[in-house]
Amino acid sequence: MQPFKTVGIIGRLGSRSVGDSLAILEQFLSRRKLTLVIEDATATMLPGTLHRIAPRAELGKTCDLIVVVGGDGSLLGVARDLARDEVPVLGVNRGGLGFLADVSPEQIETKIAEVLDGKYTVEQHFLLDARVTRAGKLVRGSPALNDVVVHPGTMARMMEFRLFVDDEFVYEQRSDGLIIATPTGSTAYALSAGGPIMHPNLDAIVVVPMFPHTLTSRPLVVPAISTVKVVVGETGTLRPQVSCDSQVDIDVLPGDEVTVAKYPVALQLVYPVEHSFYESCRSKLDWASRLGGASR
Amino acid sequence: MQPFKTVGIIGRLGSRSVGDSLAILEQFLSRRKLTLVIEDATATMLPGTLHRIAPRAELGKTCDLIVVVGGDGSLLGVARDLARDEVPVLGVNRGGLGFLADVSPEQIETKIAEVLDGKYTVEQHFLLDARVTRAGKLVRGSPALNDVVVHPGTMARMMEFRLFVDDEFVYEQRSDGLIIATPTGSTAYALSAGGPIMHPNLDAIVVVPMFPHTLTSRPLVVPAISTVKVVVGETGTLRPQVSCDSQVDIDVLPGDEVTVAKYPVALQLVYPVEHSFYESCRSKLDWASRLGGASR
Amino acid sequence: MQPFKTVGIIGRLGSRSVGDSLAILEQFLSRRKLTLVIEDATATMLPGTLHRIAPRAELGKTCDLIVVVGGDGSLLGVARDLARDEVPVLGVNRGGLGFLADVSPEQIETKIAEVLDGKYTVEQHFLLDARVTRAGKLVRGSPALNDVVVHPGTMARMMEFRLFVDDEFVYEQRSDGLIIATPTGSTAYALSAGGPIMHPNLDAIVVVPMFPHTLTSRPLVVPAISTVKVVVGETGTLRPQVSCDSQVDIDVLPGDEVTVAKYPVALQLVYPVEHSFYESCRSKLDWASRLGGASR
Amino acid sequence: MQPFKTVGIIGRLGSRSVGDSLAILEQFLSRRKLTLVIEDATATMLPGTLHRIAPRAELGKTCDLIVVVGGDGSLLGVARDLARDEVPVLGVNRGGLGFLADVSPEQIETKIAEVLDGKYTVEQHFLLDARVTRAGKLVRGSPALNDVVVHPGTMARMMEFRLFVDDEFVYEQRSDGLIIATPTGSTAYALSAGGPIMHPNLDAIVVVPMFPHTLTSRPLVVPAISTVKVVVGETGTLRPQVSCDSQVDIDVLPGDEVTVAKYPVALQLVYPVEHSFYESCRSKLDWASRLGGASR
Repeated sequence: MQPFKTVGIIGRLGSRSVGDSLAILEQFLSRRKLTLVIEDATATMLPGTLHRIAPRAELGKTCDLIVVVGGDGSLLGVARDLARDEVPVLGVNRGGLGFLADVSPEQIETKIAEVLDGKYTVEQHFLLDARVTRAGKLVRGSPALNDVVVHPGTMARMMEFRLFVDDEFVYEQRSDGLIIATPTGSTAYALSAGGPIMHPNLDAIVVVPMFPHTLTSRPLVVPAISTVKVVVGETGTLRPQVSCDSQVDIDVLPGDEVTVAKYPVALQLVYPVEHSFYESCRSKLDWASRLGGASR
Repeated sequence: MQPFKTVGIIGRLGSRSVGDSLAILEQFLSRRKLTLVIEDATATMLPGTLHRIAPRAELGKTCDLIVVVGGDGSLLGVARDLARDEVPVLGVNRGGLGFLADVSPEQIETKIAEVLDGKYTVEQHFLLDARVTRAGKLVRGSPALNDVVVHPGTMARMMEFRLFVDDEFVYEQRSDGLIIATPTGSTAYALSAGGPIMHPNLDAIVVVPMFPHTLTSRPLVVPAISTVKVVVGETGTLRPQVSCDSQVDIDVLPGDEVTVAKYPVALQLVYPVEHSFYESCRSKLDWASRLGGASR
Repeated sequence: MQPFKTVGIIGRLGSRSVGDSLAILEQFLSRRKLTLVIEDATATMLPGTLHRIAPRAELGKTCDLIVVVGGDGSLLGVARDLARDEVPVLGVNRGGLGFLADVSPEQIETKIAEVLDGKYTVEQHFLLDARVTRAGKLVRGSPALNDVVVHPGTMARMMEFRLFVDDEFVYEQRSDGLIIATPTGSTAYALSAGGPIMHPNLDAIVVVPMFPHTLTSRPLVVPAISTVKVVVGETGTLRPQVSCDSQVDIDVLPGDEVTVAKYPVALQLVYPVEHSFYESCRSKLDWASRLGGASR
Repeated sequence: MQPFKTVGIIGRLGSRSVGDSLAILEQFLSRRKLTLVIEDATATMLPGTLHRIAPRAELGKTCDLIVVVGGDGSLLGVARDLARDEVPVLGVNRGGLGFLADVSPEQIETKIAEVLDGKYTVEQHFLLDARVTRAGKLVRGSPALNDVVVHPGTMARMMEFRLFVDDEFVYEQRSDGLIIATPTGSTAYALSAGGPIMHPNLDAIVVVPMFPHTLTSRPLVVPAISTVKVVVGETGTLRPQVSCDSQVDIDVLPGDEVTVAKYPVALQLVYPVEHSFYESCRSKLDWASRLGGASR
């Protein structure tokens, strides 16, 4: 018995290598006698496909597995758009590091066959829910799988803000902004900014200051049930923004409150069974699995 | 009704200012008509005391509150010795930063009166349980409230080890050692080594490499239910050790396994009601509560 | 004999406290029977002044001392505008940290009297010369006293570039940009980004990566005679810029070369005699001059 | 005409692979009709050698090139022992990273032939001169090519000291110690501790605090003509030491002064002509020379 019957296909646009992998994937899944649904934008990369074409939102409603061909970036978008539907998602890596999109293009036939045969694990990756309120009214919100970044809009300029956790005042800061990241995002932007690596099972959020104008500010890890709130200070000529996964930008004004809390549902990320977080770290972050000779 | 009836008193030895505070504390508690028990070593700093004198272990069995006068260092020792008795502990700070020992000497009469009147909160601070096994047999173990440090014994020399979390291999490393810290310890040694600050309520352990001989190793935060294991590599002329709270040292040999997991009971730390972790960070880590003028 | 006869006055606009200090300064210098020249923009903050008013460029030509009232930011602008005239500059701090503007408003009469009596030191602060060339032709350039920052224009987005030093290839990088700083700038933005503090007498430039998408990139210190070159890579939808002292922005395009080298003349910064760089670090960076009690 | 006529050979003891390379090296140099001098300890790894055997000190006096087979560690020892003789030194890497020992064992015949034919460059690597004085009298001193480390002797314990540069007070600190490094040492221990990479031509010294008990202390780069002085504070039960290149240890007592200044002569390090510092960084520190796909 196959665990998945209707499979949605989404690909990153504009890359020939993604197109090649989509074609291989479509053929492979067709042979498995599955019902395929191609995301409408993606269908432009599969000209002549005979499978059903539908908008992304419909894939979330009708599929019981979605395969995304692209990089971690593509998966971030799918997660934000479809996490609410709780449909399992599997990533084929045609991008960079591939912490999320773990199956390599060469492995499409072998690894996805395993998954279709029921040999897989599902990892829950929780999202954040970012909301901007102005004078008590919601302006706009967005989920984020990796991180919510509050920043001055312009580079090399500092903004001022106050940070609260669960309505407790934490500090007032002048910096290039603040990264609020999930464990999933802890190996992305937050890591570049000096944040720790957090195990995917950890139920925590990390708050990482960006080039703070003080030497005493450090990454802060709080329970994931916390509500993190950033109150935007005076901005002068700046046009600060809230950036979700570096893909969705929301403009903010002085006095605006940016609240970040756990999103009600988690991304269901499908991995072939032998997946290991630490193995990903070793291969993607160049951690040593064996040491060479000594040099100090 | 008073919540505490039998109060134990422990002080850091060898400091005149601790002696002064102990005398004030003893007089104050006497007036409150409480049963006092003075730790035997501490009694040498209260000559002529008429209260009962007993060894530290007995205080754990007989008291329903223990007041420790000293610094965070004194509290670490009391925590390791008496946590198993689950007796609430309150710290009077006669030391340095005082993240744990939060009541200042000047506040003894006001703050402790509040606590005795029932105005207090109890924070659970979990400990780690470090065990060294050799060829499968336990050599020695110790609890630790702040951190367990595996290090080469000699400074400015590197040791080799392999790290496992829940029996999954993480990496092989050559470094000056590894700090495995609780949220409590995250503002101590681990912070100096670049680890994140972790909220006291976070149920997590952080593993911080010390001067790793690779540029890719970063602090790693894992759920507190994890078992962290360090397997000691070849040591040459080194005499590596496991250090608990920088107070208890255990010698280790090549091939020894150091396992670190959550200790079964937590320290019950008593704070006056208005205690705030972030306020402690602001005052003790010099976080800004208000910004001055701009300078960049 | 007075070393300075014609003194120029420049103030940061828009702050009442700067206006107050300007008035005190003008009165004090008038009593000393010096020829004063007020910068034209600054004169709006000294209504009714009877002294000569002139554009900033003319102050550089005619004065033998310029007093700047504001913060380090105001001094950065004066340095870029007037360094070429090699006129000594003294800063009165009405801003933030004040590494450059070292005289506090309360000290105007005492400290500037000392300087006018010949009790002062002149520190040479070299500037950088940033030039953007496109297809071999100079597009635009600017000096910079603190730093030259090459960045993607938009926050939380990465740009690609290649770095060369003295035409030797260093690395290709994807990051939020690169800070190229002088010793003067080493206590400003570069410090927030993890760069080292460089003594003002050090003849060196530091190159600090901003949130690099690799864990192996570190600040790099090279001799100040080096030419640092950044070749901008593909930019997609980004609009990258070169930012001099976070005050002058130059747009760049893919393939543009940003060369940064030592500027031919240095800022002549006047300090009262007892000025000490390390004392500035202690007071402005909160370095301990005495330790309190132990806490670890 | 050959630039070098008498060549000394030194090898790291105790490694079979070093012995193999020594044999190849001896045969190769014999064929070139050079006068060889084998260091006496090294001769135990070349049983039956017919070449002259002499103590290390004599090699410094009689040779005009010394080839060291080992790792950077072996070169550090040779540099400290023989730098004063100003004899050029070439390293064959049988160890770890090999920043100094740049010729790989496979390249012995090709690269050393080039060097013997006059195709080489000589890089000057300055050393430090560490001296411990007690009550004004010199106790002991040692040169150091990489770094001078002042540390508490015992790991995971802090020591107190005061830092002076050119007799100016810098700060009082409680930490695990201080690393004072040359540009050569900037890619070794100091790098692990968060110090910047310094170009070999930079005439500077970096002072890197080790796990300082303050969040505001950062690496400090000063001109190489500076004298850095560390005054050891109260030590309690610690037995602090000064460690030169992690190979020579000198015990220190409370009140001792450790002065570190530039050593009068520099190591003459011979590289094949095409040597590039940045190429070494790319290959040994894993800097990217080309980027793969994007992932953020």
